[in-house]
Amino acid sequence: MAGEEFGLAAAAGAAATVDAASGRSSRVTALRSVEDIFSDFRARRSAIVRALTEDLEKFAALCNPDLDCLCLYGNSDGTWEVAPPPEMVPPELPEPALGINFSRDTMYRSDWVALLSVFSDSWLLAVAFFHGARLDRDDRVRLFNMINDLPTVYEVVFSVEQSDEQSGMDNGAKDTPSPQKEDDSNITAGLQHEKKRKLSAIAF
Amino acid sequence: MAGEEFGLAAAAGAAATVDAASGRSSRVTALRSVEDIFSDFRARRSAIVRALTEDLEKFAALCNPDLDCLCLYGNSDGTWEVAPPPEMVPPELPEPALGINFSRDTMYRSDWVALLSVFSDSWLLAVAFFHGARLDRDDRVRLFNMINDLPTVYEVVFSVEQSDEQSGMDNGAKDTPSPQKEDDSNITAGLQHEKKRKLSAIAF
Repeated sequence: MAGEEFGLAAAAGAAATVDAASGRSSRVTALRSVEDIFSDFRARRSAIVRALTEDLEKFAALCNPDLDCLCLYGNSDGTWEVAPPPEMVPPELPEPALGINFSRDTMYRSDWVALLSVFSDSWLLAVAFFHGARLDRDDRVRLFNMINDLPTVYEVVFSVEQSDEQSGMDNGAKDTPSPQKEDDSNITAGLQHEKKRKLSAIAF
Repeated sequence: MAGEEFGLAAAAGAAATVDAASGRSSRVTALRSVEDIFSDFRARRSAIVRALTEDLEKFAALCNPDLDCLCLYGNSDGTWEVAPPPEMVPPELPEPALGINFSRDTMYRSDWVALLSVFSDSWLLAVAFFHGARLDRDDRVRLFNMINDLPTVYEVVFSVEQSDEQSGMDNGAKDTPSPQKEDDSNITAGLQHEKKRKLSAIAF
């Protein structure tokens, strides 16, 4: 298929445009090697861990539910930011969970942080393997193993596993969660909120 | 931290609610074992591969750029669908790329399919490891290896690697793409489109 090289070029190219929506200054560049992708992953992950630990009050303050649909971004330069989703499609990268600010004041703070941690872990992996679309199978294994040798955001934030890295977390939260024992499928029914009204705010 | 077990319960619970926005009938349930998560991954992946190969014309027809912001969902029951993002936050699962329909008519079809393939691979992995948030490090490796033993959506759709599974693809597209040789960082500058106006359509 003649266009397929260009097709992946398009994917990589999309990753190289600056997002005008959030005004993020850290230019996203297409990454090619396992090492570059891992470095990008590690920087974004550290940024998110910081947002959810030592910068938590500042982060929470930015997640004003009265504002537009917001996301937590960990940037490749090690900074984090709360910003609306990109206005352009295709987006430069897979998007993190939308509208995290809407639930800030209606969940227990620790539950809200746990949810954001799990969504962030998922997003970080999605971004890494979006960059890694050109990798072959062996390199994907190598990338995953490098990623998996780090504790997840959730593990760092909640100290599920002791990390030997500097996580910057509040070490007051050391409890190890016990395994989930019962069906919790409806627990959050009351925690969910409509975002359709909020998404409209993006349209100015 | 008292709420952390509930925090992950909230994440799993969020994954168990039916999304009223899309009216999707396949109930999303919280998955616990590596095998269950892998089965879910494989079913979603097969559905997306089918959407992008044998069902491509039908899929493309559903991606009308005049409609609201749409996503391609591979469902755990093996079906695919084109639907708006969930209206509720937190969403039941990480969201696939938004607004794929807006670029349908302004990209070469093969480029559009390639982009959707790469975004879908990324989303599938994000969903699998969102379900796998409770897994320990060894189980994450096991899950990843099972996933990585399958060719990616991109590989199947573009036959980068010959698969011994039934992919259902159009075997007319057998060319192997050559490695990307030059900086393609600005190639898609002209392909991107504003979605802010379109996102507003979700608000009815």
